[in-house]
Amino acid sequence: MKLTILGCHSATPRVNTHPTAQVLEINNHIFLIDCGEGTQVRLRENKIKFNRIKHIFISHLHGDHVYGLIGLISTFRLLTRKTELHIYGPKGIKEMLTIQLKLADSWTNFPLLFHELTEKTSTLIFEDQSVEVHTIPLQHRIYTNGFLFKEKEGERKLDINAVRKAKIDMAYYQKLKQGFDVENTEGKRIKNSSVTKPPNTAKSYAYCSDTSYFEAIIPIIKEATVLYHEATFLEQHENLALPTGHSTAKQAARIALKANVGNLVLGHYSTRYHSLSSFKEEAEMIFNNVLLAQEGKTFSF
Amino acid sequence: MKLTILGCHSATPRVNTHPTAQVLEINNHIFLIDCGEGTQVRLRENKIKFNRIKHIFISHLHGDHVYGLIGLISTFRLLTRKTELHIYGPKGIKEMLTIQLKLADSWTNFPLLFHELTEKTSTLIFEDQSVEVHTIPLQHRIYTNGFLFKEKEGERKLDINAVRKAKIDMAYYQKLKQGFDVENTEGKRIKNSSVTKPPNTAKSYAYCSDTSYFEAIIPIIKEATVLYHEATFLEQHENLALPTGHSTAKQAARIALKANVGNLVLGHYSTRYHSLSSFKEEAEMIFNNVLLAQEGKTFSF
Repeated sequence: MKLTILGCHSATPRVNTHPTAQVLEINNHIFLIDCGEGTQVRLRENKIKFNRIKHIFISHLHGDHVYGLIGLISTFRLLTRKTELHIYGPKGIKEMLTIQLKLADSWTNFPLLFHELTEKTSTLIFEDQSVEVHTIPLQHRIYTNGFLFKEKEGERKLDINAVRKAKIDMAYYQKLKQGFDVENTEGKRIKNSSVTKPPNTAKSYAYCSDTSYFEAIIPIIKEATVLYHEATFLEQHENLALPTGHSTAKQAARIALKANVGNLVLGHYSTRYHSLSSFKEEAEMIFNNVLLAQEGKTFSF
Repeated sequence: MKLTILGCHSATPRVNTHPTAQVLEINNHIFLIDCGEGTQVRLRENKIKFNRIKHIFISHLHGDHVYGLIGLISTFRLLTRKTELHIYGPKGIKEMLTIQLKLADSWTNFPLLFHELTEKTSTLIFEDQSVEVHTIPLQHRIYTNGFLFKEKEGERKLDINAVRKAKIDMAYYQKLKQGFDVENTEGKRIKNSSVTKPPNTAKSYAYCSDTSYFEAIIPIIKEATVLYHEATFLEQHENLALPTGHSTAKQAARIALKANVGNLVLGHYSTRYHSLSSFKEEAEMIFNNVLLAQEGKTFSF
């Protein structure tokens, strides 16, 4: 699982800080999460192939999370994309984008499929053989979802020496991977666990931006491998956090602790702070495994 | 008159090339002309004060000319702008922007005034004591206007030695500047031209992007101090120009020659070309005073 930060600052794009956008690589999928202004240029900078992006998840319709989307779609069109593109985001996103395509008289030449969200409880919005995506309803000034990306548990792994020793025919290998007991060439029943090993642990990534401190998300993100939680402010500005629907680094860490996640990645920093190290220090007072999102940085988990 | 090029490439923003946006300083006005994605970052890079921009002119609703506008307006809002902002652009621009502000639940806290254009002949759209702005209807794939920015002729200049010698009371200086003859302290009628000099020549800037070769603009832009004319292609790709509603460098030069303008600035280059010098060479075969728009470049006229 690989996470690339394209932008991790709040509010307005500046020369060296960019609004929110991330790319998650998980089980051969490339998911784009949020799409602030300039995201298409960040994708180029980070050499992420446009055609591999088939699913874009938009948390909410504030500009710093979505104003780069129409430009990205237009660029896909100009590059004569054929691949279909799925957009998941709050109700209204379809109207917002289609009015702009209509006024430019520039309909896409690839299928553009909208999945508009209105649910206020966690909902399964994407699923295939290897991955599930669930919403994480957040508490912000407008309707906002985080997203939980979960690998599905893979197949069991053959202990090939044990398999051969137990004289099992190759025709049964797939059954073994699926966890079944099988008969060997001598008609003897072989217990699955004696010839296979457990699958790799299924990883998960919980993306939570933007939100005030909101304990209702804890059961949804429980035990996630990685939690990205916004930390717009430091504790010294906690008074600003609640009215603006944002969190402090300490609050993010408190959520990480209570949800017992593996790692916490902080981001969505207010541009009022000139150094990011205070965010890490503050969060580490509560939770151990704290990482700082930074533009252009890639994390592997 | 000062022209700063924020972006001068066509189609899609890239790491080092930006879609169309320009800033024209003329008689103390700062006019923003077109606003492709990322324009707000370019304004910061070029240290142009956001608050001095009170009028934005949008030629047409293709993304590379307008997708930076919603982000710029949002940033103005976040910076608690109070100054009113006038947007001039094709009908539809108001709906396109307001739907996005509505979905973000982020109405501006400053007056946002739309001047939607539908006329197909050149129209006066802005006027004050020192400047006029007229549309230049262009020929493109969708409804598109260029803009002609014209200084108004200023006051005549006093030849202060001649004025004193002619014994004219200071009370009459303003009348002299306005071109009237006056009486001197001895009751003698003094001819205006004997004590004043002509005003500075009124300058003008004609902005024409995007358009195919279109001679109908010539009477409108005649004798302009500076013509910016798009040159998306070189002559070798002339076959692409007409169907896409664009021009070649040579066609731009032909318009400059026929309109007898002072200077021709080329821009809106297709990103297929790796060097810009061919644009200049091609245009100079037809017209003498050719300049190349380049990101971050400022021209003074």
